[in-house]
Amino acid sequence: MRFFSDNAAPVHPQLFAAMAAADTLDTAYDGDRWSRALDERLGALFEHEVRVLWVPTGTAANCLALAALCPPYGGVICHRDAHIQNDEGGAPEFYTHGAKLMLAEGPGAKLDPAGIAAVADAIADDVHRVQPHAVSITNATEYGLVYRTPEVAAIGELCRARGLRLHMDGARFANAMATAGCSPAEMTWRAGVDALSFGFVKNGGMSAEALVLFDPALADATLRRRKRAGLLLSKGRYLAAQILAMLDDELWLTNGRAANAGAALLGAAAGDRLIHPVEANEVFLRASPQEAAQLRAAGFDFYDWAPGEVRFVTAWNSASEDLARFADAIAAL
Amino acid sequence: MRFFSDNAAPVHPQLFAAMAAADTLDTAYDGDRWSRALDERLGALFEHEVRVLWVPTGTAANCLALAALCPPYGGVICHRDAHIQNDEGGAPEFYTHGAKLMLAEGPGAKLDPAGIAAVADAIADDVHRVQPHAVSITNATEYGLVYRTPEVAAIGELCRARGLRLHMDGARFANAMATAGCSPAEMTWRAGVDALSFGFVKNGGMSAEALVLFDPALADATLRRRKRAGLLLSKGRYLAAQILAMLDDELWLTNGRAANAGAALLGAAAGDRLIHPVEANEVFLRASPQEAAQLRAAGFDFYDWAPGEVRFVTAWNSASEDLARFADAIAAL
Amino acid sequence: MRFFSDNAAPVHPQLFAAMAAADTLDTAYDGDRWSRALDERLGALFEHEVRVLWVPTGTAANCLALAALCPPYGGVICHRDAHIQNDEGGAPEFYTHGAKLMLAEGPGAKLDPAGIAAVADAIADDVHRVQPHAVSITNATEYGLVYRTPEVAAIGELCRARGLRLHMDGARFANAMATAGCSPAEMTWRAGVDALSFGFVKNGGMSAEALVLFDPALADATLRRRKRAGLLLSKGRYLAAQILAMLDDELWLTNGRAANAGAALLGAAAGDRLIHPVEANEVFLRASPQEAAQLRAAGFDFYDWAPGEVRFVTAWNSASEDLARFADAIAAL
Amino acid sequence: MRFFSDNAAPVHPQLFAAMAAADTLDTAYDGDRWSRALDERLGALFEHEVRVLWVPTGTAANCLALAALCPPYGGVICHRDAHIQNDEGGAPEFYTHGAKLMLAEGPGAKLDPAGIAAVADAIADDVHRVQPHAVSITNATEYGLVYRTPEVAAIGELCRARGLRLHMDGARFANAMATAGCSPAEMTWRAGVDALSFGFVKNGGMSAEALVLFDPALADATLRRRKRAGLLLSKGRYLAAQILAMLDDELWLTNGRAANAGAALLGAAAGDRLIHPVEANEVFLRASPQEAAQLRAAGFDFYDWAPGEVRFVTAWNSASEDLARFADAIAAL
Repeated sequence: MRFFSDNAAPVHPQLFAAMAAADTLDTAYDGDRWSRALDERLGALFEHEVRVLWVPTGTAANCLALAALCPPYGGVICHRDAHIQNDEGGAPEFYTHGAKLMLAEGPGAKLDPAGIAAVADAIADDVHRVQPHAVSITNATEYGLVYRTPEVAAIGELCRARGLRLHMDGARFANAMATAGCSPAEMTWRAGVDALSFGFVKNGGMSAEALVLFDPALADATLRRRKRAGLLLSKGRYLAAQILAMLDDELWLTNGRAANAGAALLGAAAGDRLIHPVEANEVFLRASPQEAAQLRAAGFDFYDWAPGEVRFVTAWNSASEDLARFADAIAAL
Repeated sequence: MRFFSDNAAPVHPQLFAAMAAADTLDTAYDGDRWSRALDERLGALFEHEVRVLWVPTGTAANCLALAALCPPYGGVICHRDAHIQNDEGGAPEFYTHGAKLMLAEGPGAKLDPAGIAAVADAIADDVHRVQPHAVSITNATEYGLVYRTPEVAAIGELCRARGLRLHMDGARFANAMATAGCSPAEMTWRAGVDALSFGFVKNGGMSAEALVLFDPALADATLRRRKRAGLLLSKGRYLAAQILAMLDDELWLTNGRAANAGAALLGAAAGDRLIHPVEANEVFLRASPQEAAQLRAAGFDFYDWAPGEVRFVTAWNSASEDLARFADAIAAL
Repeated sequence: MRFFSDNAAPVHPQLFAAMAAADTLDTAYDGDRWSRALDERLGALFEHEVRVLWVPTGTAANCLALAALCPPYGGVICHRDAHIQNDEGGAPEFYTHGAKLMLAEGPGAKLDPAGIAAVADAIADDVHRVQPHAVSITNATEYGLVYRTPEVAAIGELCRARGLRLHMDGARFANAMATAGCSPAEMTWRAGVDALSFGFVKNGGMSAEALVLFDPALADATLRRRKRAGLLLSKGRYLAAQILAMLDDELWLTNGRAANAGAALLGAAAGDRLIHPVEANEVFLRASPQEAAQLRAAGFDFYDWAPGEVRFVTAWNSASEDLARFADAIAAL
Repeated sequence: MRFFSDNAAPVHPQLFAAMAAADTLDTAYDGDRWSRALDERLGALFEHEVRVLWVPTGTAANCLALAALCPPYGGVICHRDAHIQNDEGGAPEFYTHGAKLMLAEGPGAKLDPAGIAAVADAIADDVHRVQPHAVSITNATEYGLVYRTPEVAAIGELCRARGLRLHMDGARFANAMATAGCSPAEMTWRAGVDALSFGFVKNGGMSAEALVLFDPALADATLRRRKRAGLLLSKGRYLAAQILAMLDDELWLTNGRAANAGAALLGAAAGDRLIHPVEANEVFLRASPQEAAQLRAAGFDFYDWAPGEVRFVTAWNSASEDLARFADAIAAL
């Protein structure tokens, strides 16, 4: 019973079916009819003109977005615990040609205007200092917290006032939206988001994430950067088909809700042990090495986050019986 | 009846089956059992210790190889018509941080030692000139010619003598091997090749190519570069499974042979119109705009290569009846 | 008697005097009064609002200009024999983060609209091909030819029509202007030039070149790139003082004329041996190894350009008696 | 009376004399006899085989060193207040092609093994995390503290044990050495330093710093990177002559001592106001805005470091009478 990572979960059967349906001769790269449908389908979802690029990883989506929003000589303000800072092997620096990540503070890997301003205000506006050009936030955050619309809008407001662009890393956007309960438009462009990494792989996908550009002017260069990064798969239809299948009947949201429900169950069992509120599909809790070993001995697999801290991640397909048994085991610690 | 590109062909059913078989919870990234099997399986094929990285595109495989073989301040000698020069949107320069492609001449996009030496010899060995560090050849070439083992070995010999590393772009390696009839070892490391982009997507694959490093010392940095480029898919098992399925019962070679046979048929029909000998799965021939229109009117789709020149590409699944009708139509021009 | 390179010549005494006059405590970097005077002084010379950055080398000026005019995923059309292609150790690729130099043909390293269009027209406008974004021409060219105003204007016209930016490498701008006899405005922005590398070092300077931006919107990013490249000397006043001294009483033009006159003398002596007309301060001529040895034996130093070809370069201070003796020796071959 | 920055001070007359003496025709770039003497002269000073590159700025020296010591996908551990992090406009990221600076803590901008280890130990050794490859320390530090030999050696020991390379930013190396009282060898390679940015400009120079490589194997690539960065001045002899003049009769040390003595005087006057001990030529002290205004009204110019903090910097030529008056004014606050 693995609660190690949503990355490890299998692929939703509807996506396999969609890939099988796309398994026919069509134009290569992104000229096929599935790829060409993305702008319209996601435009409808977001109630805004968008340009959408499929990419095979969230790192690619994030870093293409950063390259679109920040020049090589600029900086991107993000949380100290952001995925782009800690888990992408330097990809932001690679894609942006050396822009600097500027680390801000905030509980639960969540930023707010004050935390962003504290970073920006400390930077003298001269040629010796790298200047911030963009802000990147993660929703749900690396600790499973969810930005609500007013929180994003406040950051968007600060960005607008200071001439910064705003990126949202939505590797777990579905989990965030399942909790936030607002419209995709409210969570993104209406709140000032310029580009969204809309994740599907952690949510039952196989190999397709969507980079959603709310400013169509960013598209041309980004399409070229995608090719230049070796990310333009020659049979793109199999990626586009996954995304389209996720949008059908709101499968993305259904999957996100399912994963969140599992995490809520585990979180309730964890009680006082919780380090962060459980708002998405991740549960961080205090557990001694002995307790962790006890859980593992009972057949549960998970990640040692830090000394005395463990992380459980639920997925779209976490089985009810497994969740129930795990919740019992947690409660019994 | 499309003879436009092997990129447009569907995926071989055995690869779909392999992905379905891998559709279970396993370790993320490349820690799963399929990914971990690659070194051994391809090591057996190549009769040499190898380090293998799956990547989603041939461009990624090529450019990770170039970055491993050439520093930012160096150059890579390749053919003027090489894919890395003309069709990768500047990815070689991106991955190598600005290394220079140095363009050599040769009929049919094929290089030989004299053509390579002509480029290298014209470069004074001083700090003002970018110095060559590597050579990249494509087998089968962009015009469908196949390097035979002695040809590669002669280039490998020149590289060794001059301290250059050697990369082979094998986007159509299967097609080349089907014709060359030698062992994979003979075609690669025994002939001096340091890194091979072993292509599967044009040969019935969906989204996986293999970068094969014959010098294991290149692996550590390359694994980091793959991550840094956003190419480390979190569910890598679906890529590895494709590659392993291709290796089973030499499916890769079977597919390559099938595609080559189709091209041979078309080539025979083309007769004197042929611009290059047909040695792999591409057919380049002279055809007036009227003749091209005539073929299209008969239901055949293909690529206008240049004024008065067209290209047909066959695939692993080109149907016998389509090929026969197309051959007839070509012969009837 | 060295006719090897104008780079080897000493510094004009007025520049030493100007540096001595600037040898006082003042604001660091480019905040001093000499640096702050550059925009106005060069604006007056060019009859246009300009932003001027001193830099220590022509390579730096050229490559900052290219980075301002071309994105990393773009290309710069230049002559096959351009300094930026052959003599800058890959600096264009470094500064532009991997833009591609696209090599055009033309006699005497001179481009014309047809040569530029031939390169651009061969590039399909799709995401697989790097697209040209700028053109760079050298005046005087690497072979000592001088673009006249209408020639530049024709290129500028083509650039405007195709959305390309135009850079002029003026490492020997003084030599070109001494011959062209037009105004600096006519030679540059009126003809469509967006950025000029205005060289002084080959013309009696010590360590200062001027990058002149005719589009002030390019300045902010370029100032940051200059710092980011480690080119913002902390005592910039000694560079600015050199440039200002060059502008006083048109010293730059006086020096350029002097060097050109020397080359004209040698060119006249060379007669039929000339490979290119002598329009600036370089003389390219045919000479057998024996003839070259004979000249060297007589005490003259110069560069072996290619088998059977030698290059003489005169400088602002080439002595009349040396020139006369050299001319005699050439004529006597 | 300016105590704003040692960057603002004039050039020592012996350097002007040396440049005048070099003002003769010689080989361009670094082929002249002054440039060619550097390896031997600095080798003698450091009692070790060295390779020396002149460069026009400390930023260039630092960043060429970092590029030599750290690959694009690696990281460099430095102090949070290091010049490379805060004052070089992103040059480290530019030169290294995006390596990450990893910020360590320590009082007075000084690192120690524990601070470095704390950063390194927090980084899991997997492909998702950028791995440290080098450490950079500044001597004297950004707050005017001086590393003594055992301190550097302890860091060197840690670097050796962990496979990290060690760079010393010696923009104020002379000031550090004047205080440390050890030999240059003891302070550098004997303590494990691989590359030193040996600063002269803040110490009476005009436009030349020396990058000293104690590992000659680093030289070849670094020479190419210098050219590629547009830093290879064509009349390098004027830079080399400055450095050689600084070495004559230990002028560099004499100048460093003079500047330090001035700072010591001011520091003594500052008493309890001192934020850091005065060990080089910088004085950081607490002063209210009113007090700062009072000093400025008395004719003293200096830098507002932070709210309630000011910085005074003395130079090689700070006049005794100015120093005395400033000391009195400080003491009178």
